[in-house]
Amino acid sequence: MRAVRLHAYGEPPQLDEVPEPTATGPHDVVVRVGGAGLCRTDLHIRDGWFAPAVPTDLPLVLGHETAGWVHEVGTAVGNVAVGDAVICHPQSSCGTCPACRVGDDMRCVRGMDFTGLTRAGGFAELMRTTDRAVLPLPSGLEPAAVAPQADAGLTVMHVVRKAVPLLGPGTCAVVVGVGGLGHIAVQCLRALTPAVVVAVDPDPESLKLAADCGAHHVVPADGTHGERVAELTGGAGAEAVLDFVGEGDAVASSLAMVRARGTYFVVGYGGELRVPTFNVVLPEISIVGNAVGTHDDLRELIALAAAGGVGVRTRTYPLEAFADALADLEAGRTHGRAVLVP
Amino acid sequence: MRAVRLHAYGEPPQLDEVPEPTATGPHDVVVRVGGAGLCRTDLHIRDGWFAPAVPTDLPLVLGHETAGWVHEVGTAVGNVAVGDAVICHPQSSCGTCPACRVGDDMRCVRGMDFTGLTRAGGFAELMRTTDRAVLPLPSGLEPAAVAPQADAGLTVMHVVRKAVPLLGPGTCAVVVGVGGLGHIAVQCLRALTPAVVVAVDPDPESLKLAADCGAHHVVPADGTHGERVAELTGGAGAEAVLDFVGEGDAVASSLAMVRARGTYFVVGYGGELRVPTFNVVLPEISIVGNAVGTHDDLRELIALAAAGGVGVRTRTYPLEAFADALADLEAGRTHGRAVLVP
Amino acid sequence: MRAVRLHAYGEPPQLDEVPEPTATGPHDVVVRVGGAGLCRTDLHIRDGWFAPAVPTDLPLVLGHETAGWVHEVGTAVGNVAVGDAVICHPQSSCGTCPACRVGDDMRCVRGMDFTGLTRAGGFAELMRTTDRAVLPLPSGLEPAAVAPQADAGLTVMHVVRKAVPLLGPGTCAVVVGVGGLGHIAVQCLRALTPAVVVAVDPDPESLKLAADCGAHHVVPADGTHGERVAELTGGAGAEAVLDFVGEGDAVASSLAMVRARGTYFVVGYGGELRVPTFNVVLPEISIVGNAVGTHDDLRELIALAAAGGVGVRTRTYPLEAFADALADLEAGRTHGRAVLVP
Amino acid sequence: MRAVRLHAYGEPPQLDEVPEPTATGPHDVVVRVGGAGLCRTDLHIRDGWFAPAVPTDLPLVLGHETAGWVHEVGTAVGNVAVGDAVICHPQSSCGTCPACRVGDDMRCVRGMDFTGLTRAGGFAELMRTTDRAVLPLPSGLEPAAVAPQADAGLTVMHVVRKAVPLLGPGTCAVVVGVGGLGHIAVQCLRALTPAVVVAVDPDPESLKLAADCGAHHVVPADGTHGERVAELTGGAGAEAVLDFVGEGDAVASSLAMVRARGTYFVVGYGGELRVPTFNVVLPEISIVGNAVGTHDDLRELIALAAAGGVGVRTRTYPLEAFADALADLEAGRTHGRAVLVP
Repeated sequence: MRAVRLHAYGEPPQLDEVPEPTATGPHDVVVRVGGAGLCRTDLHIRDGWFAPAVPTDLPLVLGHETAGWVHEVGTAVGNVAVGDAVICHPQSSCGTCPACRVGDDMRCVRGMDFTGLTRAGGFAELMRTTDRAVLPLPSGLEPAAVAPQADAGLTVMHVVRKAVPLLGPGTCAVVVGVGGLGHIAVQCLRALTPAVVVAVDPDPESLKLAADCGAHHVVPADGTHGERVAELTGGAGAEAVLDFVGEGDAVASSLAMVRARGTYFVVGYGGELRVPTFNVVLPEISIVGNAVGTHDDLRELIALAAAGGVGVRTRTYPLEAFADALADLEAGRTHGRAVLVP
Repeated sequence: MRAVRLHAYGEPPQLDEVPEPTATGPHDVVVRVGGAGLCRTDLHIRDGWFAPAVPTDLPLVLGHETAGWVHEVGTAVGNVAVGDAVICHPQSSCGTCPACRVGDDMRCVRGMDFTGLTRAGGFAELMRTTDRAVLPLPSGLEPAAVAPQADAGLTVMHVVRKAVPLLGPGTCAVVVGVGGLGHIAVQCLRALTPAVVVAVDPDPESLKLAADCGAHHVVPADGTHGERVAELTGGAGAEAVLDFVGEGDAVASSLAMVRARGTYFVVGYGGELRVPTFNVVLPEISIVGNAVGTHDDLRELIALAAAGGVGVRTRTYPLEAFADALADLEAGRTHGRAVLVP
Repeated sequence: MRAVRLHAYGEPPQLDEVPEPTATGPHDVVVRVGGAGLCRTDLHIRDGWFAPAVPTDLPLVLGHETAGWVHEVGTAVGNVAVGDAVICHPQSSCGTCPACRVGDDMRCVRGMDFTGLTRAGGFAELMRTTDRAVLPLPSGLEPAAVAPQADAGLTVMHVVRKAVPLLGPGTCAVVVGVGGLGHIAVQCLRALTPAVVVAVDPDPESLKLAADCGAHHVVPADGTHGERVAELTGGAGAEAVLDFVGEGDAVASSLAMVRARGTYFVVGYGGELRVPTFNVVLPEISIVGNAVGTHDDLRELIALAAAGGVGVRTRTYPLEAFADALADLEAGRTHGRAVLVP
Repeated sequence: MRAVRLHAYGEPPQLDEVPEPTATGPHDVVVRVGGAGLCRTDLHIRDGWFAPAVPTDLPLVLGHETAGWVHEVGTAVGNVAVGDAVICHPQSSCGTCPACRVGDDMRCVRGMDFTGLTRAGGFAELMRTTDRAVLPLPSGLEPAAVAPQADAGLTVMHVVRKAVPLLGPGTCAVVVGVGGLGHIAVQCLRALTPAVVVAVDPDPESLKLAADCGAHHVVPADGTHGERVAELTGGAGAEAVLDFVGEGDAVASSLAMVRARGTYFVVGYGGELRVPTFNVVLPEISIVGNAVGTHDDLRELIALAAAGGVGVRTRTYPLEAFADALADLEAGRTHGRAVLVP
């Protein structure tokens, strides 16, 4: 079968012909890929960012946002059957460690067994995963249309669920960065809270996407956006700032938009957080890190998507056009999410 | 009456003869001071730290940890009567703004109306405050013995209440800095949680105090304490690190002791928090700022003190010996809390 | 001035000429009434239901859902000024007891100092209340249009805030009884949660009102409604059932619609709850009583109303037509809420 | 091997010779039983109580509180190895359904696959269970000494964890019924909360056990215990009442001891809850059903036991003396918990 593989850090991945995976373990599930989303993290993986923390053998099939149809199941699989449409949580968790027992799949003691990072991912015709990593799709949701929910949407649902208790009537939530994650965040915040949603992004087309997704206010990230958010909140700042950038000026300016007793949710990464302890202590600000999400977050997200409450703006590319998709992402030409379809 | 007043930032305060305060407003309460705790914040005030953020007219009677007996009440006061033993929350809140309505006294829209910072404090024979700032003391608690609970203990209860949900059986809490606050924190953590409590401090006498207060483990802050905490937690780190230092190396080393999904509670201040967003995002760490506490925190703390669950180690000085008390605090000779008694 | 007063339990109230109230206490606020909602509780008060538990001197001006404009203020009032449009929380709380300090106004140790029940209420031209009981209305909200939010809406917001954490994507909330409270509940659930909202009522016109308010499904309360809710929830039952009836068959049938680990929120009263402990224990069901709400609930509700997220269906009657309004309510001809306008 | 089996509802169980179980499935774990606790639920099972709700083939090996050593494991078992000391959660959950994904093992869609109720239990030399149902015991905990923690202790930890947020300093928790569960509850409440713990039981020896376990006050259940609890709480009642009886007068008298805004936790069953809705609504009381617990509850409980925070008072009987153990339990001669040792 065809698969897009990374052969060396810092080099462009290549389209290879590789053997098809099979369900060798009792809990294995082989999925025929319907679509696989392309994520900024794929660029970080390509560039070797994760190599020190998460060592992996190359070549590696990339892709951690996968949906498709069950192609083959191992002997002990009971939750899905061949032919079922499924979306794949990227992490293959064990189910018996303390973290798994409370649903914190990402903290599984097996460690980060993550498709497209430590095991072959979804930029291929078939992908092998496990029964605990798949979630059946309700009818009406097409794999290629929802694939980015597997990570982009999942991460958003994870952080938005943390923010919901802060966001009653009369509150304000700011979404910083309206890309693949941010445009889903605007929708989730609208669906799950009565907060005024403000979207901040330097790019006019991204702000238009945010408005289409339901943002009450869109604010260009031009250095004066902090003042604009202050105005919109009567000078107080926002109860929740969700930062999907996490690098450059976004970090300091996001933190500055948080009101006393509010929370800065950091989702994007790459930059540095630098703040006097006094500025965190006196106004009692919280800073909360967020990475991916739980299987239950994915279940809730797909339930919301099935009810029409959240969608992902996708642009599909044939698998063999993966290089174009990567180039568009790097050049900032992707609004919403690119999906590779084998 | 006699009062210790600050006349100029950066200068030592002086013992002055000043007029006695009276209950001029309907909600005023004048307290005959039984004792007033001396806090590191008093040094910060003296040195002008707060001057830009919280402008105040000098001279100012210092002291924000006050307990005593009600001496006079305004016409509308209904919750205390002359002669009652009381402890004084430092903040005089309005009771009608949105923050006050949910008990977040420190975020009162009246702003920081704080004894010993924006109004005359407790280093005096009498202090004027308001009915919403006083809490009756149960019999058995002497004002001079509990005065530091008004701020040192209050701040501790405030942060420990936030930490309690993280600290079930099998968890670990680290107290960084066993001074006036830290030694109370050790006791509160023991009384309110089943967590293993580890105390970290560079000073052997402070570690001895921590052990007396019930710490399961005491660890010298010698640069290897992070490794020691890692060992004590099976390599994972602590669910909660409560940092009462907040400056110098303590910030980075405290953050490094937090396990994945754990929380770094910042209470001390003066230093800088500096961390790559990646290090907060991937392990989903939270950083939570804490300042003073609510009237309800004070009520819980005093209830715990009355039940024998927490005490403050005090050393009393006559009011006129305030300079000695300040010098002992600055030189690190104060273990527990200094209390000025008029 | 004119006022509708109850002279004897079980007798119809009368329109009387009474002296105007004045701001005698420092915290008094006299409100010129813009509108006062009529509540089923007014019938209960008339019929002497509360007399044993809450003894009151008659005659009593009825009315606990009041909005209007500030007419006069006491000397210590700082949060409103003459001319301000306000809505009045029915309870006059003290602000210094432990319950008030955490915002639980209804548990104020002063006891139930409730307009229209223990003190003169809003069926009059003027009503005296206190500064802690008034909330300024944002521009755009007319007193007569929002008056029922003071109790009907307040009670709804109070219970819906408790239900929100149970109601993520894919869940179901059932509103039992679509009267003055129920039709607001449908709107609040839609505004604050992504749950599927099912409304149950015997009356077709009430079900039409529920549909207009946004209910996803309306189900006639005809004895088969439990089966219908079971179907709508895949046989499992609802995560939350909000019962605004609380008497007759509604109690048992509401409880029967709750899924395992779900909650039965009891708001209406008059009937009896009767269930084997086994039926509560095995499925781990919760039963949660709800009465009125906090000042902060009212603040959130009015913020939601100002943003267009919730409205109350009113029918206004001149104050002198109070007997018609009572008759319409008793006969079940009131859909939404009757409001008396002086 | 020897096993105690129920052959007919209403008849005494018998000691039989039966074939040894083997690890036939990939996730099977066969445990050599070190001890198995005897529970009042065993009497209910014998008497056919559960037969309508949970149909089971007889004969059935009883026993759902089992601990021992791993004897054999299936091919896919990764969390325990032969020889490990383990305690067995009674429920064998699937690990992939929505309930399992959030740790709510008792709501597994596979239904109630419960040892000693729907599958062979621990009153035998060997018991077959699954990898998800076993928890390794830390060194120092002997299977026969901790076996009752598998259900008695588990149920207690489950309900106490729900009560912890209600039980800050100055609060009161009442334990009704100091039997196998109640005496563990007293200890858990002492270890996890600063609440004043009051134990209520008709039997003086049980009250002595409660006092030994750390109850601050013991109160004979003689009809005046409600007044005694009222006195101990300044007339207000308790924040939490944990009822381990759930039948007879205990239900009404437990509910009557709950203060406004407090919670009645129902754990025992067999009786009827009967209360006017008004009495639940006005004081905003909650009634919360509790059954067994999660694997994570068991993990926390065992962590607490390993730290010395909770123990179970046991009296051991040889397996062949099961009839004596049953007779002692029925006659109220068992204080703490009976454990059968093969």
